[in-house]
Amino acid sequence: MQKLKVGIIGAGRIGQVHAKSITYHIPQAEIVAISDIYLEGAMKVADELGIPNACADYHEILNNPEIEAVLICSSTDTHADIAVEAAEAGKHIFCEKPVDLTVAKIKKVISAVEKAGVKLQIGFNRRYDHNFAEIKRLANEGKLGKLQTIKITSRDPEPPAIEYVKVSGGIFLDMTVHDFDMARFIGGEVEEVYANATVMVDPAIGEAGDVDTALVALKFKSGAIGVIDNCRKACYGYDQRLEVFGSGGQASASNDTPTNVAYINNDGNRTDKPLYFFLERYMQSFADEMKEFINAVQNDVPTKTTVNDGLEALRLGLAAKLSVAEHRPVKLSEIEC
Amino acid sequence: MQKLKVGIIGAGRIGQVHAKSITYHIPQAEIVAISDIYLEGAMKVADELGIPNACADYHEILNNPEIEAVLICSSTDTHADIAVEAAEAGKHIFCEKPVDLTVAKIKKVISAVEKAGVKLQIGFNRRYDHNFAEIKRLANEGKLGKLQTIKITSRDPEPPAIEYVKVSGGIFLDMTVHDFDMARFIGGEVEEVYANATVMVDPAIGEAGDVDTALVALKFKSGAIGVIDNCRKACYGYDQRLEVFGSGGQASASNDTPTNVAYINNDGNRTDKPLYFFLERYMQSFADEMKEFINAVQNDVPTKTTVNDGLEALRLGLAAKLSVAEHRPVKLSEIEC
Amino acid sequence: MQKLKVGIIGAGRIGQVHAKSITYHIPQAEIVAISDIYLEGAMKVADELGIPNACADYHEILNNPEIEAVLICSSTDTHADIAVEAAEAGKHIFCEKPVDLTVAKIKKVISAVEKAGVKLQIGFNRRYDHNFAEIKRLANEGKLGKLQTIKITSRDPEPPAIEYVKVSGGIFLDMTVHDFDMARFIGGEVEEVYANATVMVDPAIGEAGDVDTALVALKFKSGAIGVIDNCRKACYGYDQRLEVFGSGGQASASNDTPTNVAYINNDGNRTDKPLYFFLERYMQSFADEMKEFINAVQNDVPTKTTVNDGLEALRLGLAAKLSVAEHRPVKLSEIEC
Amino acid sequence: MQKLKVGIIGAGRIGQVHAKSITYHIPQAEIVAISDIYLEGAMKVADELGIPNACADYHEILNNPEIEAVLICSSTDTHADIAVEAAEAGKHIFCEKPVDLTVAKIKKVISAVEKAGVKLQIGFNRRYDHNFAEIKRLANEGKLGKLQTIKITSRDPEPPAIEYVKVSGGIFLDMTVHDFDMARFIGGEVEEVYANATVMVDPAIGEAGDVDTALVALKFKSGAIGVIDNCRKACYGYDQRLEVFGSGGQASASNDTPTNVAYINNDGNRTDKPLYFFLERYMQSFADEMKEFINAVQNDVPTKTTVNDGLEALRLGLAAKLSVAEHRPVKLSEIEC
Repeated sequence: MQKLKVGIIGAGRIGQVHAKSITYHIPQAEIVAISDIYLEGAMKVADELGIPNACADYHEILNNPEIEAVLICSSTDTHADIAVEAAEAGKHIFCEKPVDLTVAKIKKVISAVEKAGVKLQIGFNRRYDHNFAEIKRLANEGKLGKLQTIKITSRDPEPPAIEYVKVSGGIFLDMTVHDFDMARFIGGEVEEVYANATVMVDPAIGEAGDVDTALVALKFKSGAIGVIDNCRKACYGYDQRLEVFGSGGQASASNDTPTNVAYINNDGNRTDKPLYFFLERYMQSFADEMKEFINAVQNDVPTKTTVNDGLEALRLGLAAKLSVAEHRPVKLSEIEC
Repeated sequence: MQKLKVGIIGAGRIGQVHAKSITYHIPQAEIVAISDIYLEGAMKVADELGIPNACADYHEILNNPEIEAVLICSSTDTHADIAVEAAEAGKHIFCEKPVDLTVAKIKKVISAVEKAGVKLQIGFNRRYDHNFAEIKRLANEGKLGKLQTIKITSRDPEPPAIEYVKVSGGIFLDMTVHDFDMARFIGGEVEEVYANATVMVDPAIGEAGDVDTALVALKFKSGAIGVIDNCRKACYGYDQRLEVFGSGGQASASNDTPTNVAYINNDGNRTDKPLYFFLERYMQSFADEMKEFINAVQNDVPTKTTVNDGLEALRLGLAAKLSVAEHRPVKLSEIEC
Repeated sequence: MQKLKVGIIGAGRIGQVHAKSITYHIPQAEIVAISDIYLEGAMKVADELGIPNACADYHEILNNPEIEAVLICSSTDTHADIAVEAAEAGKHIFCEKPVDLTVAKIKKVISAVEKAGVKLQIGFNRRYDHNFAEIKRLANEGKLGKLQTIKITSRDPEPPAIEYVKVSGGIFLDMTVHDFDMARFIGGEVEEVYANATVMVDPAIGEAGDVDTALVALKFKSGAIGVIDNCRKACYGYDQRLEVFGSGGQASASNDTPTNVAYINNDGNRTDKPLYFFLERYMQSFADEMKEFINAVQNDVPTKTTVNDGLEALRLGLAAKLSVAEHRPVKLSEIEC
Repeated sequence: MQKLKVGIIGAGRIGQVHAKSITYHIPQAEIVAISDIYLEGAMKVADELGIPNACADYHEILNNPEIEAVLICSSTDTHADIAVEAAEAGKHIFCEKPVDLTVAKIKKVISAVEKAGVKLQIGFNRRYDHNFAEIKRLANEGKLGKLQTIKITSRDPEPPAIEYVKVSGGIFLDMTVHDFDMARFIGGEVEEVYANATVMVDPAIGEAGDVDTALVALKFKSGAIGVIDNCRKACYGYDQRLEVFGSGGQASASNDTPTNVAYINNDGNRTDKPLYFFLERYMQSFADEMKEFINAVQNDVPTKTTVNDGLEALRLGLAAKLSVAEHRPVKLSEIEC
């Protein structure tokens, strides 16, 4: 089979992750071009990975007839517009999350993609994480019986820069969005959201209009209940856990660690902290989601993480924001769709 | 020092637990009499443990001038009345939880105890559990920094009899009450409660007017947030865990197990399920709370778990019930006190 | 059934352990008398536990016709002589380990016990430990298949006093003897022993003629192989582990700890050190071995840990000493029996 | 810096591992040619990884002036001869273990390498494993104090083919050789070896003149003691553990597993078995040892795993064989060097 020809739009941190995954781990694809508004950045990555073309304007990628699929790794506010253009150019699309911070723009993407008949996959990489995928497998096999309680813990090692907080849409749209997707991945559609939120890490986050510590209670349509707890900073590192309790059993994923070494002395028994942050923790999942996307395009099978998943995760984030603003449980049906 | 002379009112399961703790583990006290409306039961326990007096009417215990302290282990609906009588008789009181299902009656107990100048300790034994006490110690020593998120998991191995469900006051008053006390023990006073609840274990529980699977989101006055998740039945047994996250670190208690043996074969690595139920899991804490009570009386120091703790746990339960009924967050200040 | 009347010879640390087990946990027995060459010690224990008689001379116990069974908890050098006298007096015997440091004296005990037709149980309490008993159960049920490798780790938190080291018979007879018994408990009879031993903890132990760090390689008659590693001092505490590997799987017991709390901060994830020393670690096993002995006497069933087990553990210790002395593997058949 | 030009001799399993490591993970090097006596194999790998030259005769690689370093991944019996030729051709050498099964031939390699002034690194990849490297780091930092006891467990998921057993030199030379190197890596030079060995997995292994279950007791020159336990088959998979006990603490490495998921139901709490076999378990270490080699050549720093390490590991294996043959402890000084 011929290699899938790919263009990458955006040569920042996540663009580089995907560029390396394809170069080193996915012989089924090759990167033909990479763009970045900061041309030097694109050139540097192209040079390091042997990508033949680097450019500043992503339209060069969209206009390149050789390119079959694009990876949208630019800043969030450009995702939807580029996705619409890419669909119109007949390119298959891998789009980083969040697709957009408004329902309206995501719906335009949905229309464009449907009209063009191209594939689109959203970068909810955690669905491909070895631990969470194993819990999903146990649930699918019926080992957990009827799901009753889903608990997600998601804490970052450090808060983002205040400048980012101001434009990110807030914790529910930039951080919890991954957890909302995980909740849906495991438990299906959500009916209602209630969010407790506070500022305990850094007053500057509050001054920027956001919160840094939150707890979101969920009701699923299936009748199950759930909870997500988030914090912008855990002093011990990146804390990413999932616990699913059902009538048939319980499955829980603890954190991945650099080593499995225990050191015991008079002070106690010490084991490792979690892997540092998302690049370390989720490296395997980034490669696996990209393999899935390449495979979906090459073999014309549906992508597993669709633009609709991006839309629903956004709506959950908007519901959580409304819950905090109005201090009441919010039905998902109250949010535009 | 002379042994403290104790009478036990109620020779059921929990009455026997305390009778054995004193007989076998607390040489500082001796049981002078035990009563039960079912006289045969009291006589059987008396015979087994060498207690000199058994009677059907607890007034014999209250009227016995030799007895300095009583343990109220009778059915919940009798706790408050007996506590008032015991205070009036000048006896120190250890009272099983819940003190009562109404605020009004607990306040009568508070008045009577204050008037009589006797000590009263509530049977919130979990405060004395080795794991939870260690987390409290870490918090007190500042090892957790400023507390941010408190998570309590509490699931039973089997639901109680439907007859019990009908009179218990419901899951929030008979089961979550322990978790509400744990929340206060660790996080201090609670400001607001929001409860999600559903029937997923047994429709008969729903028909009896109760729920069997619940999630309670808490806001503490300190600004911390919390969550309790409960279920009347976990197929893998009694699940009792606590996780406290703060700016300085996180402490978590996993379940106690019968052994520390791992057995690995082609099917995976198998370790034990949790200890069966509360008698096994909390045996150590039952003995330790009783030692604490005996010591408080003998050395005239304050009891650590007071009738006010019983009152506040009840109010949290009532707030949770109201939250479910009115489907909204409920401030604790809305509940009579 | 009438209570078994027991006398305890020796009111030191282990005598007190058994006295408390019977008083608090074994209603089927009662202690009629306790003796100690240091009378004050016996009187103190008698007073605390309500034992009616205390004496300096153990013959008072042997001559007391009311007493049916004796617990020999005196110093090691007196075990065998007292056991012979006790047998001749028709008393059932629970004898602390080691029975003696010579084969000849143990054989006299065997003769006396057989002639008198009394029961004798040796205090190899670890057979009754919840973890090790569970591994034995797995082996008995065939879950481990054919046993191939048995690994025992046994390290003390602190070395004993040098005075004790001088008279104890050395590490193989006073410490490894428990591990030799565990090896036989799990793997059956041993055919050959090879011991590596060195002084790394304290030169004074070497000057006293003993070693403090040792490794004993075992060949079992079944064809299985084994290893015991010992140290007189582990800075992190009492380390007592067992791992059994067979064709059907592997079972391993990790250490018991005071709590199941994990505390994680920037320094790593900290859990508890093992329970402090044998009194803490093996408390449950001390009670359970005593229940077993009382039951064996009362219901006339064989004791599970016999004087022959004491003899064989001694012979393994003597073989290990010979192996070190002659720097070669030693067949157990070379040791007098 | 210019890329190091490498040739690979042997395109079997381990040759492919290194070829992929360099291609995908080590941009500092490029593979110029690969050879295999089975030409088709070399061509297939070359095609997959974009290696420009494939040949049957390794002399084409040795004679290629462009190639600076060779990886010797051919069958064991050819290692030493090829290494000598490579040194004479002025190539730096990465040589898979064991270098040879005789001391004499390894010494020829040592001479040739010294004479030519080329670098040689032995493929003792486990030194680069994240877990074992962490224990080494703790030891180096003094966290373990003076080392007292070193315990290595090494069990394979399946025995090799009988044909391989017949020519491999036996378990001590083909399997334990890795563990002997680990023992030296952690504990330094060994003074004496005593080996217990038996056939418990498959009688055909015994008929082929080898054993399948073994325990090797070690005395280190430092005074420390050690033990290695091996088995050709563990039904639960590849078991690779290390425990190091010293005066300052103990460090232990448990097995790596595919996920960190725990699944608990009525049957117990199940976690993963170890990663399947050495390709899965040691993938990270294979890449890291190759980076180390490439770096040593490019920056002219010493290799960390030298031909002397290969020699000493062989001598330990020969000592273990002699110990079994003569049923006695064997001093390493008895083995030719």
